[in-house]
Amino acid sequence: MEHKGFVLWFTGLPCSGKTTVADLVAEKLKGHGMKVERLDGDIVRKSLTRDLGFSKEDRDKNIERVTFVAMMLSRNGVAVLPAFVSPYIAARENARKETTNFTEVFVKCTIEECEKRDVKGMYKKAREGIIKDFTGVDDPYEEPPNPEIIIESDNETVEQSAEKVMQYLESNGFLKPINN
Amino acid sequence: MEHKGFVLWFTGLPCSGKTTVADLVAEKLKGHGMKVERLDGDIVRKSLTRDLGFSKEDRDKNIERVTFVAMMLSRNGVAVLPAFVSPYIAARENARKETTNFTEVFVKCTIEECEKRDVKGMYKKAREGIIKDFTGVDDPYEEPPNPEIIIESDNETVEQSAEKVMQYLESNGFLKPINN
Repeated sequence: MEHKGFVLWFTGLPCSGKTTVADLVAEKLKGHGMKVERLDGDIVRKSLTRDLGFSKEDRDKNIERVTFVAMMLSRNGVAVLPAFVSPYIAARENARKETTNFTEVFVKCTIEECEKRDVKGMYKKAREGIIKDFTGVDDPYEEPPNPEIIIESDNETVEQSAEKVMQYLESNGFLKPINN
Repeated sequence: MEHKGFVLWFTGLPCSGKTTVADLVAEKLKGHGMKVERLDGDIVRKSLTRDLGFSKEDRDKNIERVTFVAMMLSRNGVAVLPAFVSPYIAARENARKETTNFTEVFVKCTIEECEKRDVKGMYKKAREGIIKDFTGVDDPYEEPPNPEIIIESDNETVEQSAEKVMQYLESNGFLKPINN
């Protein structure tokens, strides 16, 4: 049985926990025998978008190219999990329009908590002006008005968050049963 | 039965017939129930690579991004058919290294014949200097030293060329039998 392709688009502040939750969901989906691709800055900024910085224009281009890849993969039956700050509503809505079965996962976390988790010290550098255009500090984050899933990563364990996503997928017919 | 993903990379001079042959091969593969994605300049230069021109650097970036997409699709069981002039050996060899089951299809055609077929008058504009960096006129084309398949598009019909590709795929176990 072929499973339907879909896009689980993780959006949220830097260090909100997008990648951590996406990684666990990806493992669970693989356990269901699904084809899964994770996409994030570490992956795409090495090749696909390595010419880009963090200006509004460059962020839009970054998301535009990721959208192209997600469009191609999702329409071919792959579960695609992009995890990007993706701070602008318009860019995310364009991804919704272009891809198959787009599901927005808002990883909600207070900026104080994000800052506490920031092992690389990026928030600190942003506050000191060493890093510019940092979302949450000197660049805006536009919260999704109607995300399909909200992860409250400061009130849930990673396991709880991942299960919430899996339950959404199951309720909506996107989850392939595990073969016995 | 899942079929194996692969990449049929069509390379050759402008107007050599890459897209025409790739289109027919794509139709035949779909007839076998395969998942197929065609990629060419008309498709990617609208979004994925719309910031790029035709300098060596931009051509390399163009092929690098297409390679990323082909890598993602081919490892997920899709038959990917990129058709690009892709004049540089190094860029094509990188695509070979990065993707699953890369097969190089050299669409060989004399420049005189390509020029005759050029309905958009691009060769003429290149010779008049109106278009710069045009492969075959003022930009080099590096022929593949060892392509898996050679299409002689000035000596074969499109149907013959497409059949040659299909026979190669069948001999190498990439063709899914047609379900009765």
